[in-house]
Amino acid sequence: MTVHASPVSLRATGGPGQPEPGPALSELYRGFERQSLVPLWTEIGDLMPPSPRPRAVPHRWCWSELLGLAQRSGDLVPVGRGGERRAIALANPGLGGAPFATPTLWAAIQYLNPREDAPVHRHAQNAFRFVVEGEGVWTVVDDDPVAMRRGDFLLTPGWRFHGHHNRSDAPMAWLDGLDIPFAHHMGSGFFEDGPEEVPDRSAPARSRSERLWSHPGLRPVGVTGETRCSPIAAYRWEHTDAALREQLALADEGRPGVLEAGHAAVRFSNPVTGGDVLPTIRAEMHRLRAGTRTATRREVGSSVWQVFDGEGTVRVGDREWPVHRGDLVTVPSWVPLTVTAVTGLDLFRFSDAPILERLHLDRVELGNP
Amino acid sequence: MTVHASPVSLRATGGPGQPEPGPALSELYRGFERQSLVPLWTEIGDLMPPSPRPRAVPHRWCWSELLGLAQRSGDLVPVGRGGERRAIALANPGLGGAPFATPTLWAAIQYLNPREDAPVHRHAQNAFRFVVEGEGVWTVVDDDPVAMRRGDFLLTPGWRFHGHHNRSDAPMAWLDGLDIPFAHHMGSGFFEDGPEEVPDRSAPARSRSERLWSHPGLRPVGVTGETRCSPIAAYRWEHTDAALREQLALADEGRPGVLEAGHAAVRFSNPVTGGDVLPTIRAEMHRLRAGTRTATRREVGSSVWQVFDGEGTVRVGDREWPVHRGDLVTVPSWVPLTVTAVTGLDLFRFSDAPILERLHLDRVELGNP
Amino acid sequence: MTVHASPVSLRATGGPGQPEPGPALSELYRGFERQSLVPLWTEIGDLMPPSPRPRAVPHRWCWSELLGLAQRSGDLVPVGRGGERRAIALANPGLGGAPFATPTLWAAIQYLNPREDAPVHRHAQNAFRFVVEGEGVWTVVDDDPVAMRRGDFLLTPGWRFHGHHNRSDAPMAWLDGLDIPFAHHMGSGFFEDGPEEVPDRSAPARSRSERLWSHPGLRPVGVTGETRCSPIAAYRWEHTDAALREQLALADEGRPGVLEAGHAAVRFSNPVTGGDVLPTIRAEMHRLRAGTRTATRREVGSSVWQVFDGEGTVRVGDREWPVHRGDLVTVPSWVPLTVTAVTGLDLFRFSDAPILERLHLDRVELGNP
Amino acid sequence: MTVHASPVSLRATGGPGQPEPGPALSELYRGFERQSLVPLWTEIGDLMPPSPRPRAVPHRWCWSELLGLAQRSGDLVPVGRGGERRAIALANPGLGGAPFATPTLWAAIQYLNPREDAPVHRHAQNAFRFVVEGEGVWTVVDDDPVAMRRGDFLLTPGWRFHGHHNRSDAPMAWLDGLDIPFAHHMGSGFFEDGPEEVPDRSAPARSRSERLWSHPGLRPVGVTGETRCSPIAAYRWEHTDAALREQLALADEGRPGVLEAGHAAVRFSNPVTGGDVLPTIRAEMHRLRAGTRTATRREVGSSVWQVFDGEGTVRVGDREWPVHRGDLVTVPSWVPLTVTAVTGLDLFRFSDAPILERLHLDRVELGNP
Repeated sequence: MTVHASPVSLRATGGPGQPEPGPALSELYRGFERQSLVPLWTEIGDLMPPSPRPRAVPHRWCWSELLGLAQRSGDLVPVGRGGERRAIALANPGLGGAPFATPTLWAAIQYLNPREDAPVHRHAQNAFRFVVEGEGVWTVVDDDPVAMRRGDFLLTPGWRFHGHHNRSDAPMAWLDGLDIPFAHHMGSGFFEDGPEEVPDRSAPARSRSERLWSHPGLRPVGVTGETRCSPIAAYRWEHTDAALREQLALADEGRPGVLEAGHAAVRFSNPVTGGDVLPTIRAEMHRLRAGTRTATRREVGSSVWQVFDGEGTVRVGDREWPVHRGDLVTVPSWVPLTVTAVTGLDLFRFSDAPILERLHLDRVELGNP
Repeated sequence: MTVHASPVSLRATGGPGQPEPGPALSELYRGFERQSLVPLWTEIGDLMPPSPRPRAVPHRWCWSELLGLAQRSGDLVPVGRGGERRAIALANPGLGGAPFATPTLWAAIQYLNPREDAPVHRHAQNAFRFVVEGEGVWTVVDDDPVAMRRGDFLLTPGWRFHGHHNRSDAPMAWLDGLDIPFAHHMGSGFFEDGPEEVPDRSAPARSRSERLWSHPGLRPVGVTGETRCSPIAAYRWEHTDAALREQLALADEGRPGVLEAGHAAVRFSNPVTGGDVLPTIRAEMHRLRAGTRTATRREVGSSVWQVFDGEGTVRVGDREWPVHRGDLVTVPSWVPLTVTAVTGLDLFRFSDAPILERLHLDRVELGNP
Repeated sequence: MTVHASPVSLRATGGPGQPEPGPALSELYRGFERQSLVPLWTEIGDLMPPSPRPRAVPHRWCWSELLGLAQRSGDLVPVGRGGERRAIALANPGLGGAPFATPTLWAAIQYLNPREDAPVHRHAQNAFRFVVEGEGVWTVVDDDPVAMRRGDFLLTPGWRFHGHHNRSDAPMAWLDGLDIPFAHHMGSGFFEDGPEEVPDRSAPARSRSERLWSHPGLRPVGVTGETRCSPIAAYRWEHTDAALREQLALADEGRPGVLEAGHAAVRFSNPVTGGDVLPTIRAEMHRLRAGTRTATRREVGSSVWQVFDGEGTVRVGDREWPVHRGDLVTVPSWVPLTVTAVTGLDLFRFSDAPILERLHLDRVELGNP
Repeated sequence: MTVHASPVSLRATGGPGQPEPGPALSELYRGFERQSLVPLWTEIGDLMPPSPRPRAVPHRWCWSELLGLAQRSGDLVPVGRGGERRAIALANPGLGGAPFATPTLWAAIQYLNPREDAPVHRHAQNAFRFVVEGEGVWTVVDDDPVAMRRGDFLLTPGWRFHGHHNRSDAPMAWLDGLDIPFAHHMGSGFFEDGPEEVPDRSAPARSRSERLWSHPGLRPVGVTGETRCSPIAAYRWEHTDAALREQLALADEGRPGVLEAGHAAVRFSNPVTGGDVLPTIRAEMHRLRAGTRTATRREVGSSVWQVFDGEGTVRVGDREWPVHRGDLVTVPSWVPLTVTAVTGLDLFRFSDAPILERLHLDRVELGNP
């Protein structure tokens, strides 16, 4: 089925379980059209196939291309109220031109010129940022300034005011991830302008949220944490890197911890609940040793991967690409994925798994490449 | 934004926060197209409006029209493997011809001729049936035969084999509700044929599931209930009716219970958890006294209402219709709804509220008509 | 270990892992006493045995004896402010004279003369009543009058005002169950007098709580249910009886449902959560067919059983008693229990299982008698 | 009420709500005794007082005294199978000589001589250790060696094998905390000897559990964490200290975080759930600035405090003591507590709050000293 079912398809000749074509049937089908009705029997093959047939397709975007276009946008496109952000979104070729990486996930490169500001706003859509390279920008979430640096994973939970400002003399680009397509589908998005100016232009190395919440296994007694979204605004690379390194070291000692041989993985989590950082988005960091090939895995739900460092190949369904730093790949629902590391390979991944899991729609299948 | 953003829109003349048109910008935009990219700044107004702007529209379907077409289908369309069901789906006029009542909900009239069978299959999509009139069909869920009668609400949780057979000499029609559109969007649907024959053709008045689980406040100790979906296959009208009647009687005695003055409501629930019957669908029965007008209410998420008995009017946004037994109305996300009862009015309602609530995307606003 | 460890025991002669007795050791032990200290090494055998060695013992109380003493109390003991209730508690012989059936559970016969009132009060302790015989009393919980009849299970959750009044010309006796011993141990009890008079002296057949909440699988939309304790004030015998009867009938049809062969069981549950009716007390009804002997079972936590109808024998550890209507038996933690039905046998059971389960301390072991 | 109610008390002269004394009443009371029964009306004043009247009393133990006796025990008492541990427990003077700090909590000083081992065993009781001073011991939990150092908080969840070995040439003492009294009351304790030898005698600076789990906001993807108890075996002082320091620094900047003015507090938590580290025990670290006096607070449930550093006074009910490093104080249920810091004062605290909270028995009252 396509979303735009052609009326013509309704008059298809009979097949298994299908009625005999003829004038009476045509008249019946015209009746359906007049009454805004569609029969199941002509659609069920496309509508309820044996396993998911997503419209989204596997695709890879090269960071060098993205960055070039972002730099050119830096020359031509202002950042201000109305346009809001100099962000350029991955548009999955299967999704008809919409700026959606998958049916649920938005992924964009955002670019800020030296000394430039992005205005303050808030939206119900949940957001994060991941920094492949560069530094010098602070994102101010509510009134907490959060430094952005290579390897950091940063959160902007839904309905929090936020703006960015570049304190440095160099431009900076990063990955924005949101649940815009899901909110668009569900009709759950709200948006509001914030104050004209970023409320706190200081530039601390660590946000206040980190100073309160980013201590392992410890939580403040005097402050109630939020269960909906993580209260940690920034997950710093030094911690992520150490956690991945330890997993591989434990494996060398014959101890559990890695996801599979040669493949370490950590999930960013909400210290208040132990669950995902956002209600709609899961985020993880993966590290593959040089020469490692992951088990082929497919799962219900879609994801986007970005190479943080190293070189390898990513196979999604029957497509395969070499990947380098910053490159992005979409994995549609139920399409098998295999990653092979040529060098040591660090990958950031985000997905809509929390949606599927909370609704008991998750399924996973592991196989061999 | 439409899902099919025209490339032309990307070249729109500048506005607030928009770049100056010109050859350089056009060149940039062509670069985006070549690389499967879409900028945020041209789309944000449609993509992230101040409040939800659903593509689905308010619409009403008349039961008499539906039933007439279903009867005609009974003459022309077989029920068997391949077509699977003689079901005719509401196709929201805003959704481009897809057989979707809303972006998440499927609603269809299903029709079975006397002595006819619908073949056994199963699917990951969650389903229920609601019976506005008639009786004589048993739906067999796994191997438990469940009688269908006027006023009953029946469950077929995801991935359970089920088939129907009409034991009577009269045709029967009912409402099917599923999360097909949501599963289609998420890529979470699976489908499988079942055995050739319905496994148990007996015709008990009550299903075994009811005999085990449908006792108020009591649960079997020897059987673990399912937390994902309710283990009760049928919620009988006699209980629903009594619960609504008591709420109004309590109100007459000055006691709490009703939803608002003159408006009783019960929610079908899973006795194992107290929560919704299905992970993706909420179902309720509402009773309005003659002359009652509900508060105007809008909420994030979409719903479908069906009149079970009585006459009234339903206003959704700027549309308003008189409604009678069996008529169906869709309420898109964030569109205000007001129901007015001319006679006493009983309404069945189902919605995608569990999805929104589990993802913390729910919002409700009450106002006056 | 006894709770009142004798200092002498600390000077016991050495054994495995024990120090050599002598003047220096005696001096050390005197130092412990002076400083309010006790060494682990002399106590560990009693304090941390291989499996639980409860102080409570298996015991049976005959209803005829209880009832006789309650009737005599009806002649001699007033019911009023200060004494509060004409309740006579089971005092487990292993618990040193305290009015505790087990270390966590209170069980008492309460007795009200014709036309007599018990004053209104409230306490943090959670309470229920179970009626073996008689009727005519209404317990008024907050201001909801709740009729008490044979076979009914009635709730008085913690901190709700409640009083009783006997509307009939006959006395009435019933079983009270509370978590008084647990609250006493934890220091969690609060108590407060209520108004001088029971607030509503009407005598409806069903409480308002039942009219709102006691419909199978249905919950009111307009009223938020309480998650802590069930909102249903009375679980009526007709429903309990039907649920047990159906389980046995299903077993006759070869279908699952019973706890074991010839043994049906239902748990009273909170429709808001599906969990136990009270945070500290589980309550169940069991039905054994004549000739059935249960599997021998032991579990962490204690329970009290009362025969509702029929005759049988109950074996707890190495004690065994014949039991008749109304008789009560205590089962201490980890002591094996076997019940044998001579006639058809209905038994009410309550236990502290929710405490153990919520703290992950539960263990169960099934064996043969 | 005392747990050992004297039969004499049952013959007390009449009072409000009490029966008239006389031969008939005496005969009735003799009947109660014969049948192992106790009436409520004579006991209710003690059994259900207006607010908790715990048997446990406020008490302080001086670390210097404890340590002296522990050192002397080091000379006289072996550590080995049978005695198991050279641990000396606080025996609350209100609890009749039992080795219980409160009705739920065990607190003991444990002492290991240079190069000494404590044998491997496991028990259902949950345990932790807190180190006021010293280092050199490794506790091996299952087969993970965990270094113990000043300021560290270490976990031994129920039913995990564990033994200790002192690798250094100095003795070491620390605080053991367990839920032994609660398990003793509930009849939930199990105990089992382990292998003869500690399975891994290596001495790493960090346990494997820390290397996997002790990264802020990060969890391994390949390992399922335990929800019952925290998977982190050691919470290191450097992190606790930093978290407390940051809270006070944030307060200096006018930002939220501290529990009250001059009073920072962190709770040790399970990263898998965000909840308490053990199902029965909460553990926290508090830091008071010099001159700070806490609000007076009472709560349902009992706790034990140990001074980690600094000097101050602790007031519990109508008792008040000066406290120094290592001193321990018990706070019974509902007895008001005020702490005053003379110098900067760091305090470790553990309590039975998770029990109360999971059973909805928690209450807190804040007042002024």
